[in-house]
Amino acid sequence: MNDRRITLAHGTGGKEMQDLIKYMFSSVITPKNVIGLEAMDDAAVILNSGNNEHIVIATDSATVDPIFFPGGNIGTLAAFGSINDVAVIGADPLFALDAIVVEEGFTLSDLEKIITSMLDAFNKNNVTVIAGDFKVMPEGQVDRIIITTTVIGFLNGDPILDSKARPGDKVIVSGPIGDHGAVITAYRYGLDPEKEGLSSDCASVLPIMRIARAIGGIHAAKDPTRGGLAMALNEIAEKSGVSIWIREDEIPIRESVRVISELLGIDPLYLACEGRVVLVVDPERAESILDALHSAGYIDARIIGEVRKERPGYVIMETEVGGYRIVEELRGELTPRIC
Amino acid sequence: MNDRRITLAHGTGGKEMQDLIKYMFSSVITPKNVIGLEAMDDAAVILNSGNNEHIVIATDSATVDPIFFPGGNIGTLAAFGSINDVAVIGADPLFALDAIVVEEGFTLSDLEKIITSMLDAFNKNNVTVIAGDFKVMPEGQVDRIIITTTVIGFLNGDPILDSKARPGDKVIVSGPIGDHGAVITAYRYGLDPEKEGLSSDCASVLPIMRIARAIGGIHAAKDPTRGGLAMALNEIAEKSGVSIWIREDEIPIRESVRVISELLGIDPLYLACEGRVVLVVDPERAESILDALHSAGYIDARIIGEVRKERPGYVIMETEVGGYRIVEELRGELTPRIC
Repeated sequence: MNDRRITLAHGTGGKEMQDLIKYMFSSVITPKNVIGLEAMDDAAVILNSGNNEHIVIATDSATVDPIFFPGGNIGTLAAFGSINDVAVIGADPLFALDAIVVEEGFTLSDLEKIITSMLDAFNKNNVTVIAGDFKVMPEGQVDRIIITTTVIGFLNGDPILDSKARPGDKVIVSGPIGDHGAVITAYRYGLDPEKEGLSSDCASVLPIMRIARAIGGIHAAKDPTRGGLAMALNEIAEKSGVSIWIREDEIPIRESVRVISELLGIDPLYLACEGRVVLVVDPERAESILDALHSAGYIDARIIGEVRKERPGYVIMETEVGGYRIVEELRGELTPRIC
Repeated sequence: MNDRRITLAHGTGGKEMQDLIKYMFSSVITPKNVIGLEAMDDAAVILNSGNNEHIVIATDSATVDPIFFPGGNIGTLAAFGSINDVAVIGADPLFALDAIVVEEGFTLSDLEKIITSMLDAFNKNNVTVIAGDFKVMPEGQVDRIIITTTVIGFLNGDPILDSKARPGDKVIVSGPIGDHGAVITAYRYGLDPEKEGLSSDCASVLPIMRIARAIGGIHAAKDPTRGGLAMALNEIAEKSGVSIWIREDEIPIRESVRVISELLGIDPLYLACEGRVVLVVDPERAESILDALHSAGYIDARIIGEVRKERPGYVIMETEVGGYRIVEELRGELTPRIC
């Protein structure tokens, strides 16, 4: 690897990043009582850490550009990023740590807005910031601000893992996909997302997980951030050794996201969400979960497909015109600094 | 605070940073079972989280420039930074999370060196990386690499807090002070630290803490990083409501660090250490701890002073010429990106 260099493709959450991480961290041996790096799941789980409780923990650096956008800012994104990674394991997040790196010359008023938004996001999810770090880099050495958050939650019962989807399961998506990715991509192409009717879906998925957990039957759950729905489904299919079959006409996508995707020649399946969750559930509970989500106001939640045994590792989409298309995992560069 | 901007002084770990953090995070209410943000200690402690064990957790962003330096690199610094914050609370660190933000164009060979060093540092301290994040920022938007680590440890018994120093206690420093700060400051002034005989003390303080814990009687412990020995002692004095009296001629400082400090007009008391610890201990255990440290190879460990009741919050140094000087907490800008 001597002369090779980091490219934007290494940061998309796709194939190149996964290969790089696997290579760089190949020496790590995870203890038996931990679901760790080798699982490459949304969070790590330290099993039976006391009172039959598991500790669930995730970390996430928010580097989004722009730092303020319709629907949120880098502070809310930093909070929800780690909250959601813990929530999709089935845990209740309780504590957070933050590490802020800020550029010299950044205004205190913007910093206050961002930190206030972050604390508000944590607070509404009953998460308390218990420690942190704060560094300043000289002007020009970092683009304004980076916030890394770590969230800890506790879990009684089995963690919900990417590897537990089973043939016959139904696949539910909790709302329209690609909203966050569409906003950031619009900016990158010099468009005004508000004029295009776009707004980030930046939100906690904890309420969604709680609704589904109350009904039960969740076999896998994932928040489709970098790499979007396509990458989330591919990870579940690969880790569970199953195929996932989805129907294009069932996938909820806002008209504004559809329009901008066509305009920019981007597949919305790869656009990041920041407040959605993909649930792979027992077929007998699927309708109940869907009804409960609709009743709770998640009116765009849909059953978008199911899990099968054949062709393990593949995600296959029945298109609106009736054909079939393999939904590949993300490769190459999409939009940098999306989250 | 509307028109004010972030300055380098906000990132030194000194007075300005502490005031900023206190203001920005003033809304946070720490639950009763947590030693959290209000303690502003090295790590947070989640009390009685199971099996009468406490969870100790700390997070730290390494932004050091240069990223390779005599004695270490940004990877070792990222590992030891969080390990040490957990170790000085008296806990055994066990798990780590890392969040790497790297600049497009960074070489994979340098990245591999850094990650390998980081993993090696964790490994030697019996700490396993269990989860992480990886982001790429476009060229020019971040200066090479930032690594944020979070380390989790477990603790039976009482956490060692900055607030528990008692009049009569002895103050021990585990080795020569200011080595790391001297290296980074030398670079900033265009000097070659190797030619000046300087090398960072970047290391785990866990072995030191274990030696002292085995003997017992530690009332407070702190690794003097940003702001150096001066800031560490001031924090202990303020939080414990005591004064700390030190003797200049007992403070271990390498000749090379003394020379460069005089050359650059810097007080070595404010230069960061990255592998030392200040121990405030029961006077009856002080000599035993010191002997044990010497036997284990920490030959420069010294009793540098003691804790008193009068003039609470002050750190006072008896100078080599016999006078007394108040050692103020750090204010203003020292060297940016020291860690």
